[in-house]
Amino acid sequence: MEKLKKYVSVKDEDHFYHQGAVELLIFNFLLILTILTIWLFKNHRFRFLHETGGAMLYGLLMGLIIQYVTKSPDVESGTVYECEKLKSGPSTLLINITNQVYEYQYKREISHHNVNGHQGNGMLQKMTFDPSIFFNILLPPIIFHAGYSLKKRHFFRNLGSILTYAFLGTAISCIVIGLIMYGFVKAMVHIGQLKQWEFHFTDCLFFGSLMSATDPVTVLAIFHELNVDTDLYTLLFGESVLNDAVAIVLTHSISIYSPKENPNAFDAAAFFQSVGNFLGIFAGSFAMGSSYAVVTALLTKFTKLCEFPMLETGLFFLLSWSAFLSAEAAGLTGIVAVLFCGVTQAHYTYNNLSPDSKMRTKQLFEFMNFLAENVIFCYMGLALFTFQNHIFNPLFIFGALVAVFVARASNIYPLSFLLNLGRKQKIPRNFQHMMMFSGLRGAIAFALAIRDTDSQPKQMMFTTALLIVFFTVWVFGGGTTPMLTWLQIRYLKPLLTHTGPPLTSTLPEWCSPVARLLTSPSAYGDQLKDGDTDYIINNDELTENYEPSAHIPVPAQDNTGSIQATGREDIQEGDLGLGGYKLQLQHTACQPQKNLLA
Amino acid sequence: MEKLKKYVSVKDEDHFYHQGAVELLIFNFLLILTILTIWLFKNHRFRFLHETGGAMLYGLLMGLIIQYVTKSPDVESGTVYECEKLKSGPSTLLINITNQVYEYQYKREISHHNVNGHQGNGMLQKMTFDPSIFFNILLPPIIFHAGYSLKKRHFFRNLGSILTYAFLGTAISCIVIGLIMYGFVKAMVHIGQLKQWEFHFTDCLFFGSLMSATDPVTVLAIFHELNVDTDLYTLLFGESVLNDAVAIVLTHSISIYSPKENPNAFDAAAFFQSVGNFLGIFAGSFAMGSSYAVVTALLTKFTKLCEFPMLETGLFFLLSWSAFLSAEAAGLTGIVAVLFCGVTQAHYTYNNLSPDSKMRTKQLFEFMNFLAENVIFCYMGLALFTFQNHIFNPLFIFGALVAVFVARASNIYPLSFLLNLGRKQKIPRNFQHMMMFSGLRGAIAFALAIRDTDSQPKQMMFTTALLIVFFTVWVFGGGTTPMLTWLQIRYLKPLLTHTGPPLTSTLPEWCSPVARLLTSPSAYGDQLKDGDTDYIINNDELTENYEPSAHIPVPAQDNTGSIQATGREDIQEGDLGLGGYKLQLQHTACQPQKNLLA
Repeated sequence: MEKLKKYVSVKDEDHFYHQGAVELLIFNFLLILTILTIWLFKNHRFRFLHETGGAMLYGLLMGLIIQYVTKSPDVESGTVYECEKLKSGPSTLLINITNQVYEYQYKREISHHNVNGHQGNGMLQKMTFDPSIFFNILLPPIIFHAGYSLKKRHFFRNLGSILTYAFLGTAISCIVIGLIMYGFVKAMVHIGQLKQWEFHFTDCLFFGSLMSATDPVTVLAIFHELNVDTDLYTLLFGESVLNDAVAIVLTHSISIYSPKENPNAFDAAAFFQSVGNFLGIFAGSFAMGSSYAVVTALLTKFTKLCEFPMLETGLFFLLSWSAFLSAEAAGLTGIVAVLFCGVTQAHYTYNNLSPDSKMRTKQLFEFMNFLAENVIFCYMGLALFTFQNHIFNPLFIFGALVAVFVARASNIYPLSFLLNLGRKQKIPRNFQHMMMFSGLRGAIAFALAIRDTDSQPKQMMFTTALLIVFFTVWVFGGGTTPMLTWLQIRYLKPLLTHTGPPLTSTLPEWCSPVARLLTSPSAYGDQLKDGDTDYIINNDELTENYEPSAHIPVPAQDNTGSIQATGREDIQEGDLGLGGYKLQLQHTACQPQKNLLA
Repeated sequence: MEKLKKYVSVKDEDHFYHQGAVELLIFNFLLILTILTIWLFKNHRFRFLHETGGAMLYGLLMGLIIQYVTKSPDVESGTVYECEKLKSGPSTLLINITNQVYEYQYKREISHHNVNGHQGNGMLQKMTFDPSIFFNILLPPIIFHAGYSLKKRHFFRNLGSILTYAFLGTAISCIVIGLIMYGFVKAMVHIGQLKQWEFHFTDCLFFGSLMSATDPVTVLAIFHELNVDTDLYTLLFGESVLNDAVAIVLTHSISIYSPKENPNAFDAAAFFQSVGNFLGIFAGSFAMGSSYAVVTALLTKFTKLCEFPMLETGLFFLLSWSAFLSAEAAGLTGIVAVLFCGVTQAHYTYNNLSPDSKMRTKQLFEFMNFLAENVIFCYMGLALFTFQNHIFNPLFIFGALVAVFVARASNIYPLSFLLNLGRKQKIPRNFQHMMMFSGLRGAIAFALAIRDTDSQPKQMMFTTALLIVFFTVWVFGGGTTPMLTWLQIRYLKPLLTHTGPPLTSTLPEWCSPVARLLTSPSAYGDQLKDGDTDYIINNDELTENYEPSAHIPVPAQDNTGSIQATGREDIQEGDLGLGGYKLQLQHTACQPQKNLLA
């Protein structure tokens, strides 16, 4: 028994006690740092490094520190099993491998060096969490929040263009990247820069599809803050959100596309099967998401759940999450399901909720979105060091960068041209440039790439995807403000007209003399509409939905972060006397319908 | 390569795709069911099965279904490694065992049958999540919420009594249970009902300490709803919250108490070391929790974070969680740290927060508390079937049940007698009976027991603890309302005086004729104070803290779940004209201080 204990190298009670606490603490610490930095940046109107870029930077530094500080002396603390020395042991050894990365290593074809690479650092391994946490826990609230806070009016006004960009554009992008990468890979093999791996055309298409996911997280986070033209915002928002869904389903369809004989030959049957898969999965996910929302709407309509806001909020939260999980469990795409679930919930269920639940759900998802976003970007920074199987190939990375830009260009410009033929309100040239520029790659591309790292081509793709995410988020994310200025999308209106926001609050501090000079006095009245905090649309949408229903001065976070009553005119109506106000509060609690106005 | 793939039995892409989704979905489904049931019960004022009991029941049924439906045909799907058939393989096989339960099995002394028992059901194993998730993720919000919503005034008024019950009472309970169980075990060995295991006195004490944790989750959940005397509530609340902290530290101290030679002999040095450990850990955890709260208070005081409620809320949340994690990482007790962190945050930081953040933090923790609570109770139900190493010993269970009651009695009655000698306001006899009756065991006892299941005595303790939790939650939890009636704590005041709540709303429906007859008309005015929803104190505390600071009619969830403005008198003052009201809103946003009244 003593021997067994010695060799199995049991963790002591104390170690057991704080299992996982240190790793979580490191993440907490990173997030706290990020929040303080965001605040500092916001306070000084410093916009050249965005918060998502900041989170990534901190993650990167922390990864570097962990790698160089915590070199563990033993091979793999706590898990050295020397079987031959065991006198007696359990009859069956069950191996519980939860981390996908390790599991997949056992079916890798070539070389052991990556497996050996694992032995380096126990801490790094612990920090590399399961990709399924990404998909099941961190992504759903972000995507749901995007759908739930959708500016419906503007969205549907631009629906045709958004769908064109999302479906046709993503397909174009995928194919263009795939073709360019295939050429690149062939050329690299030819000049001897790449070994003759089994790098099929489908692999290149797979890479193309995952790199076609422009990230709503980054795009939204940046554009939320900037008082950008609503139509441009909606186009970008709609495109980046739906585009993700398309890219995810596309990646899935390509990964299960398996031509029977020669993997390089075009197999019409397999191709059409893939297209069928794509359509089936998309439609199924859409149906799954919407039906969960409809169930929620019916439940909140026909039960008196609104008497218990906590139960109502809980049910809302759980059913929306279930939409995601059910879709995943059924082999569909959770992201698509939860996105349309969010849209449907906002359209129907939101109106059945008690005023309290309306606010609770908004704030809850806002908060979850905020945290999840920052966790993801911190984690991406960490992944550069914690992931042990990176394959850096400068030529491949360069090729991918070129491919991504060419693909973005062949998506935006031709489609915009085509759309402008039909649109009454044309998409101006500078909007097109901005859309081209905003093709940031982020969490989704990363998550799709990390899902499958079982072969060397896939590992190279992952490394490349990660670096392209860094590059686009830092360079383009940071360059958004100058670019908007340069393209005269943002500062033009307040500069040339009397509308807000005042330039004094949007331009950096060193410009203040000029800004003061050029700002019209009436623009200051619009100051509250200017954004220094996130979630512009969120709040707008809340107001929008609020006005016709309950006339209660609910404080909503406005863009300067101060408390402001929503539906201002309504307060004047409903709040002339306290008695009426109180009475109304009690009546509107559960049935905030229009009859109150009558 | 083909062979390798075959034997390693690779999960297919699809399986990979929805990894973890099914398990999460089952939990979601259970929680949705629970919420709907709670609503149904609340709607019909059915109080004989409490929501926590309901959650447990659903968990139990689900466990039963999973066990009997999903009998997996292969030994352990996906993890059959037949090493001798591998032609080539990785040079090192890293075994990543994350689940404590399995890891500990390898150092078990006796018999393999439990190890074999593992092979039965893959689904069950997946549903058994890591105990560290309990400790690091589910418990902190519950305990923090308890501290954050503490009724400070009543708490400090009864502080002496609460501390006596918590410290002295828990120690008495631990020793009494330990002694009785030791006697029982000896007797059982004597009559041959128990094999001569290494069942030391310290093991019995260990069992005593973990069974001494009366659960705040259950106690609070039940008493929140009942309009019970505030002093009784505060005594129970304070006792059950602090008692947990004491029990956890006690369990930890006993588990590291290691007398040098004979484990049954009393070793004075080791004993005093344990006492020293106990005091050190308690004081250290207290200091850790408070300092995080002080840091948060200083940060929110000296930065203008309140301009950005989202950042403020995020920082508040992360720093509070960090208090827990840091304590765990430092070998202290996170529960104690996070409890006092909550108390200190409520006392200091809360006043620095913007009105928006005040509401956000309250609602966020309320919601997290609600979800975590229900997850824990569902999980306890599941654990009866998903945990594979149960050892049911009816005699031991009976003995434990007796011991728990004797211990509770020797805690409450003698201490109440002693306290009444000193108290001006005596603790009445019926309160003492109610405290005796409310000694429910819940999540903490369960969590402490599941932490260590590496030997057969520990497994037997776990099974026994689980059953005692079921018994106390169902029988005593369900019996609380009749007991309060019988002890005349609850209905007496509204029945004999004009104060609310009206009996029509507190008595079950079939009593309504009698209730209507006996309810004074003025009692209906207090109707809003009656509880059909949880979180009475929460809301009270919010109001309490709100009144002197911001004078904004923030809708707070009141007990009937309807929207109600907090600080009613203040609205009258501040809301006579809309202009003043709006002005005030903007001014009070960040500095809601008293100068506004001047």
